[in-house]
Amino acid sequence: MDAVTRIERTLSASLDRVDTTAGPKLLAAAMRHAVFPRGARIRPRLCLAVAEACGGDDPAAANGAAAAIEFMHCASLIHDDLPCFDNADTRRGRPSVHRAFGQPLAVLAGDALIVLSFQTIAWGASASPARLASLIVAMAQATGLPSGIAAGQAWECESSIDLGEYQRAKTGALFAAATVLGAAASGAEPEQWRTLGERLGEAYQVADDIADVLSGQADLGKPTGQDLALGRPNAALSMGVDGAMRHLERLAAAAAESIPPCPGAADLKALTLGEARRLLPKDLSQRAA
Amino acid sequence: MDAVTRIERTLSASLDRVDTTAGPKLLAAAMRHAVFPRGARIRPRLCLAVAEACGGDDPAAANGAAAAIEFMHCASLIHDDLPCFDNADTRRGRPSVHRAFGQPLAVLAGDALIVLSFQTIAWGASASPARLASLIVAMAQATGLPSGIAAGQAWECESSIDLGEYQRAKTGALFAAATVLGAAASGAEPEQWRTLGERLGEAYQVADDIADVLSGQADLGKPTGQDLALGRPNAALSMGVDGAMRHLERLAAAAAESIPPCPGAADLKALTLGEARRLLPKDLSQRAA
Repeated sequence: MDAVTRIERTLSASLDRVDTTAGPKLLAAAMRHAVFPRGARIRPRLCLAVAEACGGDDPAAANGAAAAIEFMHCASLIHDDLPCFDNADTRRGRPSVHRAFGQPLAVLAGDALIVLSFQTIAWGASASPARLASLIVAMAQATGLPSGIAAGQAWECESSIDLGEYQRAKTGALFAAATVLGAAASGAEPEQWRTLGERLGEAYQVADDIADVLSGQADLGKPTGQDLALGRPNAALSMGVDGAMRHLERLAAAAAESIPPCPGAADLKALTLGEARRLLPKDLSQRAA
Repeated sequence: MDAVTRIERTLSASLDRVDTTAGPKLLAAAMRHAVFPRGARIRPRLCLAVAEACGGDDPAAANGAAAAIEFMHCASLIHDDLPCFDNADTRRGRPSVHRAFGQPLAVLAGDALIVLSFQTIAWGASASPARLASLIVAMAQATGLPSGIAAGQAWECESSIDLGEYQRAKTGALFAAATVLGAAASGAEPEQWRTLGERLGEAYQVADDIADVLSGQADLGKPTGQDLALGRPNAALSMGVDGAMRHLERLAAAAAESIPPCPGAADLKALTLGEARRLLPKDLSQRAA
């Protein structure tokens, strides 16, 4: 079964398991609205790729970890879109959750997806209980204080911002979780996989910066071109688009180099470089190909 | 060490562990504002009492479970107080989190406390990895879809409300989690402890209803007397205060009767009846004594 099929089936199965006749229907609908139809699923695909490269001896644990990362990502998008943060009307070309269901259900859908994320890890790892603690703790590190995605978003509320911590937490943490949880799900030593996720997270941020600057040419299904308008840091503004593309290629190379010795190292290295190229807007990826 | 000391130390230790110099200070401060100074800590005390009654062979696992339940309770209070829900300016006699820190940090503090709850369970159970999955899944059941506290709050967004499901989920679920997780932390069969938590949760709801009706005489540190004004269901309005008190006593007796055979059954039974009496406002508990 290919990675995307495994991810979509696990996401659906987890949601089906909690969306029963006993529960409130609108909350379940709001959660599904945030999770489907699918986006790029870049983080769960990375998680499964690492789990496979490490031997993939417990596919259910890997599926659970990958789905959990996507649930957490969707939860963070719901809350980031709220009026008190980005006040975004659209997401992936459709109404944001609070526009479609109202703010109360948007807050609760985010909460319930955070919960479902941890629940999905526990369900997936039922055959590997010894791996569960490291999976839960790694997910918590990627999402809470001091360096998870909630902490990353909270830097925007500080009067003085640590830009490195901000980007590592807000964007990098879930990419690092993807590689760390993928390794942990297959019983590998998780921390030696962190660098791969961190470098890919940085590459993703640079690709996002390039897309923002080129927003007149791109159709990303969300408001773009805002970094300049809002005075936000942007690698393509500070380095120029070509400089940012070279930086992205260096990050992808560093990511590929960081892959620890494992059964599937060569395949994963090729995949890493290919995925980094896919991050770029289509016209630029042809220039880089 | 007494139960309250164990709870306060575990809450502090967990917060200290994530509140490092690397993280954003205001988010950590908002989380601490929600957790300290302490409220009644009724749910974590119940959790520890059940863990002790079941033999208490892993105090660290029990402490982690108890603190996790309190973190989750505090998270739900932060989000329930938000302007899009109860729009409460005060909580426990102090400004609510969004009044003290603003809505963005209130949303994120709730999120980060949900995460810290699961993390604290995993830390606590490090010596009992075989118990971890049931602890994580029971906490998720108490908080997400279809019957956890987020689902309970979401019933308020439905056009047609299932009143029984609403109250079981919104108030009962975390009480049930307290007894179920307390048993699981000590290696006992968790589900046979669910009835005790559910009956105590109902008793708590009835006590809250009585307090609401008597709000002119009570000082609870939060707005009261609102059920009549807002047309909300209230046992003391439908049964009268004396009828509601008799109902509460029946619920406490049913809770005490439900306690499964265990080393500490007699002590726990006495504690259960005493705690139910403590739920009442002071003048009423003297009438009932």
